[in-house]
Formats: sequence, C-alpha cells, structure tokens
Amino acid sequence: MKTIYNPSKDTWSEILERPTQTFEAIEDTVKNVFKAIKSEGDVAIKKYTKQFDRVELDKLQLTDNEISEAQHLVSEELKEAIQLAKANIEKFHAAQKTDPVQVETTAGVVCWQEKKPIQKVGLYIPGGTAPLFSTILMLAIPANIAGCKEIVLCSPPNTEGKIHPAIVYTGNLCGVTKIFKVGGIQAIAGMTFGTESIPQVYKIFGPGNQFVTVAKQVATQYNVAIDMPAGPSELLVVADDSADAAFVASDLLSQAEHGKDSQVILVTTSKKLATDVAKEIESQLAVLPRRDIAKEAIKNSKLIYVDSDTEALALINEYGPEHFIVCVEDEDFYVSNIENAGSVFIGNYTPESAGDYASGTNHTLPTNGYAKQYSGVHLDSFYKAMTFQKISKSGIQAIGNAIELMAAAEGLEAHKNAVTLRLKSLKNN
Amino acid sequence: MKTIYNPSKDTWSEILERPTQTFEAIEDTVKNVFKAIKSEGDVAIKKYTKQFDRVELDKLQLTDNEISEAQHLVSEELKEAIQLAKANIEKFHAAQKTDPVQVETTAGVVCWQEKKPIQKVGLYIPGGTAPLFSTILMLAIPANIAGCKEIVLCSPPNTEGKIHPAIVYTGNLCGVTKIFKVGGIQAIAGMTFGTESIPQVYKIFGPGNQFVTVAKQVATQYNVAIDMPAGPSELLVVADDSADAAFVASDLLSQAEHGKDSQVILVTTSKKLATDVAKEIESQLAVLPRRDIAKEAIKNSKLIYVDSDTEALALINEYGPEHFIVCVEDEDFYVSNIENAGSVFIGNYTPESAGDYASGTNHTLPTNGYAKQYSGVHLDSFYKAMTFQKISKSGIQAIGNAIELMAAAEGLEAHKNAVTLRLKSLKNN
Repeated sequence: MKTIYNPSKDTWSEILERPTQTFEAIEDTVKNVFKAIKSEGDVAIKKYTKQFDRVELDKLQLTDNEISEAQHLVSEELKEAIQLAKANIEKFHAAQKTDPVQVETTAGVVCWQEKKPIQKVGLYIPGGTAPLFSTILMLAIPANIAGCKEIVLCSPPNTEGKIHPAIVYTGNLCGVTKIFKVGGIQAIAGMTFGTESIPQVYKIFGPGNQFVTVAKQVATQYNVAIDMPAGPSELLVVADDSADAAFVASDLLSQAEHGKDSQVILVTTSKKLATDVAKEIESQLAVLPRRDIAKEAIKNSKLIYVDSDTEALALINEYGPEHFIVCVEDEDFYVSNIENAGSVFIGNYTPESAGDYASGTNHTLPTNGYAKQYSGVHLDSFYKAMTFQKISKSGIQAIGNAIELMAAAEGLEAHKNAVTLRLKSLKNN
Repeated sequence: MKTIYNPSKDTWSEILERPTQTFEAIEDTVKNVFKAIKSEGDVAIKKYTKQFDRVELDKLQLTDNEISEAQHLVSEELKEAIQLAKANIEKFHAAQKTDPVQVETTAGVVCWQEKKPIQKVGLYIPGGTAPLFSTILMLAIPANIAGCKEIVLCSPPNTEGKIHPAIVYTGNLCGVTKIFKVGGIQAIAGMTFGTESIPQVYKIFGPGNQFVTVAKQVATQYNVAIDMPAGPSELLVVADDSADAAFVASDLLSQAEHGKDSQVILVTTSKKLATDVAKEIESQLAVLPRRDIAKEAIKNSKLIYVDSDTEALALINEYGPEHFIVCVEDEDFYVSNIENAGSVFIGNYTPESAGDYASGTNHTLPTNGYAKQYSGVHLDSFYKAMTFQKISKSGIQAIGNAIELMAAAEGLEAHKNAVTLRLKSLKNN
C-alpha cells in the first residue's frame, strides 16, 4: 500500500483518482437481450437463463412451497441475526417519514406537498458465491414502509434452479410480493418491460456485476428509474493517534475484499499510525479467505499523511467517500464539517460492517464521488413528492395580476389568458 | 381535437401514447462539443458561441455593471410581480425543510440522517423569444434555501452579446452567484467540466431545446447529476358538469402553446362538457399569438369521455400526467386517490399557470409518464441525505454477533473480522 506524505493540493485529483470502469464492450450484448425480452417475454428470459445460468426453468416465479422449503434451510441463529437487523433498519427508516407540508402562501392560495409511494419497484439481488441477502433488508424494508404495492425481487438461480435460501427467507420476511429466479441482464430487462410472469416496475434498485450495471443504464432509456449510478465500493478512514491500528486495518480490509476494483484510503495526521496500519494490513490480509481480491484492491489504495485536520478535511470533501470512518480525538471537527460522504462511522467501535448489516442505516450508498450530489437509498427513494394547490376566488384575485404580467413577459399569452378569463368572470359577478 | 368515448382498458396505452422524441441524430454533435470544451475550455466556449449564437464575446461572465444595467430595463410592475412570486415560492419551499432524524436503534447504537446542500449547482435558462425567468425562481430560490454555495446560471446571449434583462434581474434577486452568457450544449459542457471562467458543478437543473436535453444526458456520463429526464410538457384535466368549459379550454391551450409536441388531454364524465370544451378551444385558439404551435399540439391531444369517476381515475393514474387539473364536484375522490401526477390543481379558480409562476409550488415537474417514479424539483433536490452512526462499546457488544453471523453467511470474512477484533478487545479488558 502506497504511503504519500503531505501531497500538494494540485496533486489531489490524481492521487484520489478512482479505478475506472468502461462498459462499452458489453453494451451490444445488453441491448440485444433487451430487444429479445421486449418482444418475446418469458420465452426469451428462459432462453437466456439456460444460456447464462445453465439451468432450464419451467416456472420463473418462486412457489409458496419453494418459499417455505427455503425457510427450513436457514439456521435459527442466522434468522435471529436477520431479525435483529430488520428491527433496527425498520426503526431508522420509519423515523424518516415526513408529514405533508401545507402552506397558505397568499390568502386563498393553499399549496401542499405529499409523498406518494412508487407503486411498483424491482429489487435485484446478485446470487453466486456471496448471496447478498443483507441488501434485501436495505431495499424491501423501506419499500414496505413507504407503501409500495408491488415489490418484485429477481435473483439468479443456481444450476439446480434454486435461489439461496437466505435470499428467499429474507425476501419473504421483508414483504417482497413476488420472487423470481431470474438473474443478470434478463432480470433487469424483464422488470423494465414486464413479461407474462414478471411485472413491469417503475424503479429498479440493487447492485450487480458489470452486465447488471449496464442493463440498469439501458433500462433508464425505457422510462425506468434506477436507485443510483454504480461504481466500485470505497472507504476512507481518517485517523490519528487515538485510533487502534488493528481496527483501522480491519475496516480497510473489509472494504477491500468486496472486489479487485474497490478502493480504500487512510488519511492520517500520525506517521506512526500510518506505519502501524500498513503492518496490520499485511498480517491480517494473510489469513483472509478473499485475500486474492483484497490484495488487488489494496494496490489501488493509499495511506496519506497530512499535517493538519483542516488539510485532511479539505481532501476528504474533495474525494467524497462512499463510506467515511472517523477515528480521531476531535470527532466533532469532521462530523460537523463533512460535506460529501455517503455514510459516516464515528469512533473506534463503529466498524463499517455495522452499517452494512445491522445498525439500522442503509448500505446502498453513492460511490465514485457521487456523494457530492446523490443521497444513498433512504425512505424517500421509494416515494415521489407531489404538489397540490387549491386557489379560491379571492386567492386568484390576489395573485392573478402577477401571473398575467409574468406570462406576458415570457411571451406565453395562453398562460395569461387562463387567468384573465377567470379574473373577468369574477369582475362580472 | 379527437373525442373518444369509453375506451376499453386494453386501448389506453395506445390512446395515451405520448409524442416520441428521438435524439440520436444530434448525439455526435453534442459529444464533439463536449470533447472540445473539456480540452480547450473558454476558447472552445467562445468558438461555439460565435458559431451557434452568432456573437463574439470577450468575457463570458456578466459584470456587476451589466447586472445593474439590466435592473433598469425591467419595468417596476414586472419587478413587483416577480417579487410576489418569489415570496410565495420561498414560503412553500422553506416549509419543506426537515430536521435531522436521529434514532438509537439499539442501546448504544445511535444512527442519524442529515441533509447537506449540494455545494455547486448549475442552472440552465433558455433565451430566445420566450425568456424563461420564471424558471430561475423555481431553481435558485430552493438552491438558496438549501444553502448551495455556488449557484451558477448560464443563458444564451443574443446577437448583441446580452442576456434578457428579466433573466439577469431575477437571477440577481434570487442569489445566483455567477451569471454566464453561454447557451446550449456549450453551457452544459462548461458546467460539467469547468473552464477558466465557468465553475464545475455537481448537478445541473433547467429546461432546454433538444440540444440541451441531449447535452444533459451526456453530462451524466461525466459524473454530473441532472434534475430529471426531459420530455414535452403535458396537462390532463378531469372535469364534469361543475366545470367551466371556457376555463378548461384556456388551461388546455396554455399547455398546448408550449410546443408542437405538447400533449393535452381532457377526461370527462360529461358529454356536454366535452362538446363545449371542443368549441371553446376553437374560438380561443383563433386569437392566440402562438396559435400555430398550439394548433399542432392540439392534434396530439384528446377529449376522452368515460362513464364513471373510477374509470377516469384508473386511466389518469395509468397516464401519470405532469400537470393534473381537477374541476369536478367530488374533488376529494381524485385528490385522495391520485397516485401518479407531477402537480395537482384543484377547482375552477386554480389554473395551471398559477403554479407556473406565482402560487408557490415548483413548475419543474416530471413529464413523459415519469410522475410514476420521479418527484418534481423540490427543496430536497438541492440536498443529499447523509447518514451517520456512532456505536458505543456496549452497542457493538449488542449487535456484533448478528453482524458476524450475517457477514459469514455472505462469505465476507473481512467484514466479520472487523467486528470480531473489536469484540475480542472488549472481552480482554
């Protein structure tokens, strides 16, 4: 892991550059699958499932039998862990509910804002070696609190035509309305267009490999919204001598094991800590099952020493980390002044994995610098904010002239006329 | 205007089809301009301004002198109208502020959500025949309330190198920090990359022609967010015998004058009203200055008679109109049950142009059916929701085991290890 001392500001963007991804090569594949599924529906889905997942399916939707069968395959202790996580995530997301906002802006002019659930949402959950059932908690729980009517879950089947039982258990527990054994591009295309068995949805959430990422981008061309643009996972830790080097190293590695393109960064005002963390990384890395992945990610990663907290903060805000851990004496300085980060973890006993699983916050977060302008998934991700207004006769008399003047100045006479007609009718009465 | 009686549900999607737009032809032009501005900055901006706007500029940013000069060119009565609108828009958007949400999900596990302003935003305001200064109110006012530090406005200059004075006046009034005489693709590219004079921004808002629409799409490939996907403007009115045919026609026409691809729809349970509105449209249309545009839009538009309110509501929710006017006896039925609409206007004295200008609601709304999944611009459009958490020793002891179990079940041992190390250290103490 490269250590950099006091980098000058004009080198920051180079030092903080993220591993880039280009997906152009697979765009054609994705578009072809979309085309086929748009015109052939389930037939095409089954064809691609055979081709990509190497399994022939009769029925795409999980039956009640399959769901209750899966429940028995999850250990009781894992179920309890999932239930604990669910309770915390529910508490935190339910607290994000807001009341309608109503204002009488002028006497007789009443405006209000109400949030209405997105009626149909789709959740994509990757399968394979790491069955990310935790992501179901993060998506289905707020979807349910918001009141989304249709919550569709797609996840790829294994070669026996089954979905990992923990995925099925968690989906069922969190109020998913339909579960489909469909993965990859074909899942995203299926939810975009709808097929004989898969409902069309209005917004698609969830992580995935490069094919899923491109498929979600393509879906947006067909009037579907997506949770946020994708990018490799990343973590930035700011730490000083009050931090524990072993803990910091374990946090950096927990992010590094996600993928070879993950990026982890330590910013520190302590040279001793930088040295200690580097050593700890070496020793902890050696015994990790996913060390080959983590080792590659560590190559993209940096230990950065800076002289002051002010300098550190500026650099961190410039980077806009997805995950930001604060292990310093003066926590308040960073917590109050952080402008760009997805989620912030404060203190020596707040590992990032707490937020990944069970503390209550959402783990679907903006990466790739998107923390500068995107929120992570939160309750509002499952709502649209709609506005309403009702104007009385005296209300339109109070603001009508202003509307007429402005519409005329913009050259929009029909806009003006809609008010003029009403004002005239009131004069005549 | 075509009248349709009791269409059966399987014909709805055809009847409600929106005029389509395809922009592929101009994508190359847009990408070339982006490339040039990325590498040449202001030089390229000036080159394209000369080419597209037919004016050679020395300086792109408006000077204080130019700003104060413009103030004198706006009539006092228009200024007062703009100030009235500003006051209402401020009241409604300020009321949308939310407090941080804090929850102790488990004893010792404190999670909170705080909204932080997007630091740098860009507003694009078209020029030309209809100077849309009202859009500045809709964008700069909430940007200011949210606390965005840099609020950049770009608008194309005329052949004399000037921006319409109402745009300059409104921008200055609403706290825009810098105004640039740059339009079209070059404005969007300039704000995406930043140039010697134009600051790089994180999110771009505002309407525009097809070049601006494609440029905003391209900008998202360079890590910039945009307010929402674009589409032609649209209005749906539901009305019964309690409605005034002349008012309804004036509202339909106010939307129709926006562009030839605008779409307006009347859904009614009264055959008499359908006939009356059709007649009113003919007579009002004849005297409109923008009748050529409105006439084309009316061709895309429909009067739909249905037997019941239930049927009407289902059809409206299927369409998801940008603007939705409710002029019926039983308003409550529609107001309570509308699921998909950008903004709702209730009663005979609530013309859509009130919301376009001065009632207080925002006029930047989801069109093209996007009301199913997107909010219109509102205060939160200028924030990111960030989460924070702080876990105590007893907190991690309470949830640590659940995290370990879940991480292990997902095959992410380094995630587990970050917790295990901490739990062990607490046992040893």
